[in-house]
Amino acid sequence: MHELPQILDRGIVVDTEHFRIERLHLKFSNGQIRYYERMAGGGSGAVMIVPVMGDEIILVREYCAGTNSYELGFPKGKSESGESWQQTADRELREETGYSAMKYTFLRSVNSAPSFFEASIDLVLAEDLEEKPLDTGDEPEPIEIVRWSLSNISALFSDPAFREARCLAALFAAASLRGWLRLPASIL
Amino acid sequence: MHELPQILDRGIVVDTEHFRIERLHLKFSNGQIRYYERMAGGGSGAVMIVPVMGDEIILVREYCAGTNSYELGFPKGKSESGESWQQTADRELREETGYSAMKYTFLRSVNSAPSFFEASIDLVLAEDLEEKPLDTGDEPEPIEIVRWSLSNISALFSDPAFREARCLAALFAAASLRGWLRLPASIL
Repeated sequence: MHELPQILDRGIVVDTEHFRIERLHLKFSNGQIRYYERMAGGGSGAVMIVPVMGDEIILVREYCAGTNSYELGFPKGKSESGESWQQTADRELREETGYSAMKYTFLRSVNSAPSFFEASIDLVLAEDLEEKPLDTGDEPEPIEIVRWSLSNISALFSDPAFREARCLAALFAAASLRGWLRLPASIL
Repeated sequence: MHELPQILDRGIVVDTEHFRIERLHLKFSNGQIRYYERMAGGGSGAVMIVPVMGDEIILVREYCAGTNSYELGFPKGKSESGESWQQTADRELREETGYSAMKYTFLRSVNSAPSFFEASIDLVLAEDLEEKPLDTGDEPEPIEIVRWSLSNISALFSDPAFREARCLAALFAAASLRGWLRLPASIL
């Protein structure tokens, strides 16, 4: 096991509407001193949902300001204070797709670029869906719903439009659990 | 196809050593107006490498300031100006593991949280390794090398210590291409 560096000092470099950047002053166990910038997490966690309805999974396509493009992925969102992961998953699923699930299964937690970002997200499988929309009132435009057949799931893995690392991890985790993967005969 | 929002205005909110945050003033095709904050990408791209040596893949465990923890993952890094993805992959692999590869294969590109971040990373498979260390001189401590048997790859997918979404996506892409995945009989 590695001994964590000692945090000699830490401070907020900047705090904007969505981003809080900290500076850490660290002393490693071998005596080396370093300064690092990192982005602090949101605090209450976040959830990404893989919704399954019959023999289809439900994807959303929406505008993403980071890449200035429309991206295909799974519904997701940050937890509000006091929410369980199930409550966050259900609220976000209802807001983004109009469905609620009778059954939520925790898959795993993942992080993104941990050298710089603190945040992690819980990947969740949602099954037994029923229509139960929840209006947020704050979307600039309706989110497009895209249905994808489970029998064609390997094509989704290689689709260039489905390119968020967390979505690929979520799909793989769900596919492993539920046996959706049909690998090409050549690699079995 | 969706029509991209019109960018009415954009400006830098803050620019630190590692983070550049922009504010976009957008007009959606339906007339809705929104402001978004996003983090601009590094500019020259980045590469994550899945190195394979014989019947093992090579992982690194290093301190990550974002999560303030030691994390298990793949070597990676940003491209320097003028580098091809092969050159970046080779330099980062040599710096972090001490190996160079005779063969680099582009797997795919992924992004992370595209609602907020512009950056993407190229996932690359590295094969036919030979010892050829390259010292950076700027690491606070040696990076730990971890070897993982390809015959046990499904355990790596579910290991909680292997938890970066981009690493999971890279491993899946490499495993699909090279046929390392042995799915449990129950899901075939």
